[in-house]
Amino acid sequence: MVGSAMNVPIDRKSPVPLARQIQAQLERLIREGVLAPGLKLPASRDLARTLGVNRATVVLAYEELVAAGWARSHVGQGTFVLESIRPRVPATAPAAPAARNGGRQAPPRSPINWSAFFSRSARIIESEAERRRALAPPAFAETGVISFAGGMPDSGLFPTDAFRRVLNDVVRDEGETLLQYYPVAGYPPLRRYLATYLLRFGLEARPDDILIVNGSQQGFDLIARTFLDPGDAVAIEQPTYPRAMQVFRAFGAQLHGVPWTPTGPDVEALERLLARRAPKLLYCQPSCHNPTGLAMSAEVADRLLAAAARHQVPVVEDGFDASLYYGARPPAPLKARDREGVVIYIGTFSKVLFPGLRLGWLVAPPPVMERLASAKQLADLHTSALLQAAVHRFCERRLLERHVVRIAREYARRRTLLLEALRRRLGHDVTWTEPQGGFSLLMTLPDGMSANALLPRALQRGVGFTPGTAFFLDESGERTLRLSFSSVPSARIDDGVRRLAEAIKDMRRQPRPRRAEHAGVPVV
Amino acid sequence: MVGSAMNVPIDRKSPVPLARQIQAQLERLIREGVLAPGLKLPASRDLARTLGVNRATVVLAYEELVAAGWARSHVGQGTFVLESIRPRVPATAPAAPAARNGGRQAPPRSPINWSAFFSRSARIIESEAERRRALAPPAFAETGVISFAGGMPDSGLFPTDAFRRVLNDVVRDEGETLLQYYPVAGYPPLRRYLATYLLRFGLEARPDDILIVNGSQQGFDLIARTFLDPGDAVAIEQPTYPRAMQVFRAFGAQLHGVPWTPTGPDVEALERLLARRAPKLLYCQPSCHNPTGLAMSAEVADRLLAAAARHQVPVVEDGFDASLYYGARPPAPLKARDREGVVIYIGTFSKVLFPGLRLGWLVAPPPVMERLASAKQLADLHTSALLQAAVHRFCERRLLERHVVRIAREYARRRTLLLEALRRRLGHDVTWTEPQGGFSLLMTLPDGMSANALLPRALQRGVGFTPGTAFFLDESGERTLRLSFSSVPSARIDDGVRRLAEAIKDMRRQPRPRRAEHAGVPVV
Repeated sequence: MVGSAMNVPIDRKSPVPLARQIQAQLERLIREGVLAPGLKLPASRDLARTLGVNRATVVLAYEELVAAGWARSHVGQGTFVLESIRPRVPATAPAAPAARNGGRQAPPRSPINWSAFFSRSARIIESEAERRRALAPPAFAETGVISFAGGMPDSGLFPTDAFRRVLNDVVRDEGETLLQYYPVAGYPPLRRYLATYLLRFGLEARPDDILIVNGSQQGFDLIARTFLDPGDAVAIEQPTYPRAMQVFRAFGAQLHGVPWTPTGPDVEALERLLARRAPKLLYCQPSCHNPTGLAMSAEVADRLLAAAARHQVPVVEDGFDASLYYGARPPAPLKARDREGVVIYIGTFSKVLFPGLRLGWLVAPPPVMERLASAKQLADLHTSALLQAAVHRFCERRLLERHVVRIAREYARRRTLLLEALRRRLGHDVTWTEPQGGFSLLMTLPDGMSANALLPRALQRGVGFTPGTAFFLDESGERTLRLSFSSVPSARIDDGVRRLAEAIKDMRRQPRPRRAEHAGVPVV
Repeated sequence: MVGSAMNVPIDRKSPVPLARQIQAQLERLIREGVLAPGLKLPASRDLARTLGVNRATVVLAYEELVAAGWARSHVGQGTFVLESIRPRVPATAPAAPAARNGGRQAPPRSPINWSAFFSRSARIIESEAERRRALAPPAFAETGVISFAGGMPDSGLFPTDAFRRVLNDVVRDEGETLLQYYPVAGYPPLRRYLATYLLRFGLEARPDDILIVNGSQQGFDLIARTFLDPGDAVAIEQPTYPRAMQVFRAFGAQLHGVPWTPTGPDVEALERLLARRAPKLLYCQPSCHNPTGLAMSAEVADRLLAAAARHQVPVVEDGFDASLYYGARPPAPLKARDREGVVIYIGTFSKVLFPGLRLGWLVAPPPVMERLASAKQLADLHTSALLQAAVHRFCERRLLERHVVRIAREYARRRTLLLEALRRRLGHDVTWTEPQGGFSLLMTLPDGMSANALLPRALQRGVGFTPGTAFFLDESGERTLRLSFSSVPSARIDDGVRRLAEAIKDMRRQPRPRRAEHAGVPVV
């Protein structure tokens, strides 16, 4: 039976008084950071029961802990680890208590040279660390910086309260079933809903052709593990979504870029690549390309599909549905035009609803679906049925439709404001894409100017962005940067662009930064 | 902007009347299963708006659909796809509508020979399909069969309503943050809570040493991808948890069994294996071994850790915490005795709370934690922070503690009833383990009797179980079967054992089943 509180090792045979032992153990646990700053310690009665000691012994231990400056105590509230304590973080995790009790020198704590144990995949992932850090969630929200860096929806627009209500309802109605293990394919009503939802965009899929996954990121992962062996070639648009590149690389794939043109990937370059490298997959974002915000034209889409069919290359379509479009309706998804059945489609609720739910889906031909479902089952058995049911209820009540109308209007407004500000404030040697949908655009700086070098100056001026190199296989994107407008309140967009324009002006005047390295600004 | 309803392709230039076209498209979509049986079709007004046609046109199309026997209509409720329709499932997914509109023969729909494209990993997973199917959730709950097959907690004991309330509270208090993208490591208060929770079992970990994952299954997966390359050796207890074997195999590992003894793995056999094969990992379930329900003795644990340190082999401890123990308190987790820092610990809320949340955690030394977190980020960015926060709130209110007391009492009762019934009803040539914790025991049938052959007879008698072969690397478990008592109501346990004893008697009388293959019983 579980104790109602934590436990610490004590030695009843030791001459050291029990209260002193308890205090010393707690002090050690606080110092090592096992007991976090601000943590409420167990009630003395509870800890006494767990340890089988007198309550007065624990009270005494707590008093000494407070006196020694490790904890604070408030009558009626309890004893808390002091907030101001900065645990001394050891290079390795805390060792077992036995290693420290004896008073003698503990043996070396980590005899394992871990780096010799890591897989090829883990080593590849590590070598991509820089790219990964470049995509870390921006940490400067509080610092007065106007951030165009985060490619996420604005949480200020979330329909949080409506979601709370549907969540409450589905737990009440079906909680027991939804909280038990669940079949891997997903919550059937959600899959049926998606089949009709996708019809809006001309994409015909049976519920059985749909697999629910943890966001599009897990979609990439399942596709990679189902198709890729080390050394396989993958064709990928340039620029493209960095985490897709990372996943394919982590599985040992060699990536080959296909330049993006204003109407989609360069099909002639693609054809040459297909002929020369026989890639295992072609990854693309036809309906709303990240970072440019552009879409593939219908003509390019048809040529691309014909080429893929001719060369027998499965196409991985990272779908961005037509819900968040600001101009003309984009052409139908590739999957809707896929006469040969070569397309695997990845969809997500992260853009139109909540990224934090980690809910997405795959649409694939039956033989592929079976393998993807097996891979999903081994990866994590299934996606939370509770969250699936809540989203289904939300959609069924037509709350998604209403929500999308509202956010599409707001994001369209931010996009327009951004484009207007750019036109007004930036010179002719700075260019940018005119996004048709999504959350961002790609800017190109004047010849010889580097976005990575610009970033510290921009942050000094109080504006953030994502340098474009993250979106390219090589260094060819050095002059580019991504501006995401989705999370910037309308009222701050013009000011953000003003700051960016000033940073660019600074850069022209003084190509070498003065003290940029010392600025102490957070990394984007 | 998204339409408020589904869309179907129509051709305004065609001589075929629009209503007829709409009806034909809907009929096709129903026939192909894109529109599922029972689905409510969009209101005629909505579909008319989406298609840009007169509402009367849609009404006419719906009427013809009903007349042709594809749908039913109820005044005031709408039009629904008929429930009784069995969609004709094509061998491939529906092709793009363009392929069918022209009236001419559609091109071959799937020119890709998918099986030529699958990765080594996907091919390994497929070859494990049989083992996978043996573990499929039992489908005979409704059929009057008493099932000892499912190794899951009883959903009838779930604290569903209490969880609904905490879920409601966390969405209200922190919904916006919890529904946005979230840092990969997990919800900090939950990690701090786990650090003190694990102290109860003597396991000291700082919050930073803890990574939240989607259940222990994702733990296996992240560890496998961080450590294993094809051809690597992995040492694993025999019998053991089948999905762990599957994951390691899917990453190309060669598995080597270490026989389980009543006090844990055979350490001498392990030492020989470590010396001969230099495995990359040693996987074990020391505190509550599935399927036997036994625990590793303190002496075996210390010898195992010493051997692992001497041979420099990381130990993967699949932890089953001491909450669900029925006898004496088990020895501390390996990780709590781990003086050398060689253990990676996997924990889960699936046994003590809700499996369907898919919430678990890893505890690992810092250099390993960094790699595991990178792998997790590529796998699915992060685990739902909303569910993490709800579980944290649940624990913080001490609801988990109360819940565990309640279920431990109930499972202990079921265990006792099962053991009593086995003693009463089964002969001396049938043996079983006496589980100290967890949900199941392992039974061994008399010489020459196969659990796989017994299963169809047992199902005819109205009792189910999991044949033991699923838990072994080879065929050595043919005589064994797992009986799980966690999901069987107390009142049915004795009856279930009676039926099992009868099936065993049948088997003795008639070693060859008469019509077992034709019984049409569901696969376990």
